[in-house]
Amino acid sequence: MSSIPKIVILGAGYGGVLTSLRLQKELNYNEADVTLVNKHDYHYITTHLHMPAAGTDNPENARVNISKLIDEFKIDFVKSTVVQIRPQDRKVILEDGTLSYDYLVIGLGGEPETFGIPGMIENALNIRSINSVRLIREHIEYQFARYKREPHRTDYLTFVVGGAGFTGIEFVGELSDRIPELCKQFDVDPGLVKIYNIEAAPTALPGFDPELVEYAMQVLQKKGVTFKIGTAIKECTPDGVIVGEGEEIKAATVIWTGGIRGNRLIEEAGFETMRGRVKVDEFMRAPGHDNVFILGDNSLVFNPEGRPYPPTAQIAMQAGVNCAHNLVASIRNQPLKPFVYQSKGTVASLGKGEAIGIAFGKKYKGRVAAWLKKAIDLRYLFIIGGIPLVLRKGKFL
Amino acid sequence: MSSIPKIVILGAGYGGVLTSLRLQKELNYNEADVTLVNKHDYHYITTHLHMPAAGTDNPENARVNISKLIDEFKIDFVKSTVVQIRPQDRKVILEDGTLSYDYLVIGLGGEPETFGIPGMIENALNIRSINSVRLIREHIEYQFARYKREPHRTDYLTFVVGGAGFTGIEFVGELSDRIPELCKQFDVDPGLVKIYNIEAAPTALPGFDPELVEYAMQVLQKKGVTFKIGTAIKECTPDGVIVGEGEEIKAATVIWTGGIRGNRLIEEAGFETMRGRVKVDEFMRAPGHDNVFILGDNSLVFNPEGRPYPPTAQIAMQAGVNCAHNLVASIRNQPLKPFVYQSKGTVASLGKGEAIGIAFGKKYKGRVAAWLKKAIDLRYLFIIGGIPLVLRKGKFL
Repeated sequence: MSSIPKIVILGAGYGGVLTSLRLQKELNYNEADVTLVNKHDYHYITTHLHMPAAGTDNPENARVNISKLIDEFKIDFVKSTVVQIRPQDRKVILEDGTLSYDYLVIGLGGEPETFGIPGMIENALNIRSINSVRLIREHIEYQFARYKREPHRTDYLTFVVGGAGFTGIEFVGELSDRIPELCKQFDVDPGLVKIYNIEAAPTALPGFDPELVEYAMQVLQKKGVTFKIGTAIKECTPDGVIVGEGEEIKAATVIWTGGIRGNRLIEEAGFETMRGRVKVDEFMRAPGHDNVFILGDNSLVFNPEGRPYPPTAQIAMQAGVNCAHNLVASIRNQPLKPFVYQSKGTVASLGKGEAIGIAFGKKYKGRVAAWLKKAIDLRYLFIIGGIPLVLRKGKFL
Repeated sequence: MSSIPKIVILGAGYGGVLTSLRLQKELNYNEADVTLVNKHDYHYITTHLHMPAAGTDNPENARVNISKLIDEFKIDFVKSTVVQIRPQDRKVILEDGTLSYDYLVIGLGGEPETFGIPGMIENALNIRSINSVRLIREHIEYQFARYKREPHRTDYLTFVVGGAGFTGIEFVGELSDRIPELCKQFDVDPGLVKIYNIEAAPTALPGFDPELVEYAMQVLQKKGVTFKIGTAIKECTPDGVIVGEGEEIKAATVIWTGGIRGNRLIEEAGFETMRGRVKVDEFMRAPGHDNVFILGDNSLVFNPEGRPYPPTAQIAMQAGVNCAHNLVASIRNQPLKPFVYQSKGTVASLGKGEAIGIAFGKKYKGRVAAWLKKAIDLRYLFIIGGIPLVLRKGKFL
């Protein structure tokens, strides 16, 4: 009977992958038994999904086989879906088995938060996985094909994006690049296509630099995006959305990017949550569970001013690195290191050759910002897969 | 006031295009005023549509701009949709105007004949135009994307093709080639995909050589096609089809290739028809209308044994050539030439590198037949567009 501690990592997103990569580097031989569980045999680059969703890039370029990332001599990979987490038993129930753990890392990713808007779950599409973005891309193309057979249905050519946060803005940037191609391919008059970006908050990209937000909106408006800012979606129906004071926008495509909440499995496991997220301790652990670390969309981390950080890839990656460090320290009975988030800047793409961003304390826009976005994406590929992955996927960014 | 006769040609299908091409060659300067009317500004190669429908070829390769085919100094082209034919007034009503004629050529193409099967018109797709095949291709891809988000819906992966005539057989040949690609692209287990080809007649390809039919079915069965021959579709629903004695096949995609009838405009114009087709005289004219020629799917031509020829591209082309000759003869008060169909053979493709056919009085199958099919397609490109068109489109065949 081995007495080495068992570490189970749930989810191969940014947090889970970074934890795994760091563990396989820092752990000594036979110091722990690490298992990574993921629904798919691939990791996807969530920050890149707006491109395959719009059809401006192949979904293959937004995913990496997990076997290319982790060293199977050091980490066991299990392709399965988590059904239940049982902290009291230190067990995870998978759809086809059970895993016991001494330490658990939960990086299962979030779910769309629709704020109770009626019909949004049933009728809207979401940008959140390879499968979901392939559906969006196919759905969009299908509407163009349908329109040619039913030319009175201009709602087939109307695209509503709910939410003007990072995902919403980046997606409409790509979609407005894609529309002229689709119009050409399907012989459709581009003047008939409408893209609405609807945001309930009083500004697009809430919390971002107002000058850059203004620039972004101008760029996107020129590309054909109609913004409805400070406008709440009241309902999503099979025919479109109802906004503001009852105005109906007929649209065969509604994509919801307006919010993310934690994973239902976390609540069901009995952890205390806010919108499905656990307010973790300074070491990213669930309160009262010294052996359970929670990363990414399922964790709530507060800044020194007491406001929660938005759940980005960047924070999930840093949390993964910190988590791996603390797992090793726990095993070695060394003191843990508190998690301190260090923002390295933020860049939002606005389609081909256009972006806005803040990095190194400075504002960037246009081509330079777009180049910065590429550099960030390449850096990520390098971090998770080294030079070989940069060479394999980097050319597509 | 010009007194030169006005010839109006409705439809730029095989019949209309061949009539136009021959007229622009045979007519002397100012001998007649020829107008070609078509709904689109392109001609499509109907016999090639099964490929873009399945997604094994780009729809662009199945169409040719009419401006590349006809000489606009000799023939006026009007892009419009015909709304009504008024033989008594010698006028054609377009959606945006009216044309008068002295001679009329009707080559408007047929419509799907569903033999009154309930729900077929509403729920099935048809292989009959660029727009309709783009819809089929997008529809198929969309089902794969939908399946990945709703894995219990195996009906998304079931494809029913109604009719095992030429179009049905050629389409399932392509579809079975396409399925492995789609499975790879969408991470779908190929074992879950079902293709049914359902035919009410006691054999596939009724009237074709039984030995070749047997070969075709074996090839297609090996590629994963399930045949239900001698089985009538009783109803087509939004969920699939009901066949035989009430068996339901759940399928999100039903494609009807089971029959073609004439265009409704012909009946509405007062011509006597059988299933929308006019039993033309020996010169391809509507009985009682010496100035109205009817070609292709809208005409009924009988063989010496008194049975109607199937409405193929080949017969429409020959009819177009004969029609142009007789138009010129009519104008010059010369005797008309009766139409005599000369079958040059028939080849049906079964997907990549496989076909069956009869030509020069011999049977062909496999690679040789597939090569013959290519030769026929190239010959057609040469007839309508000469060497330039062969070079532009031929490489895709």
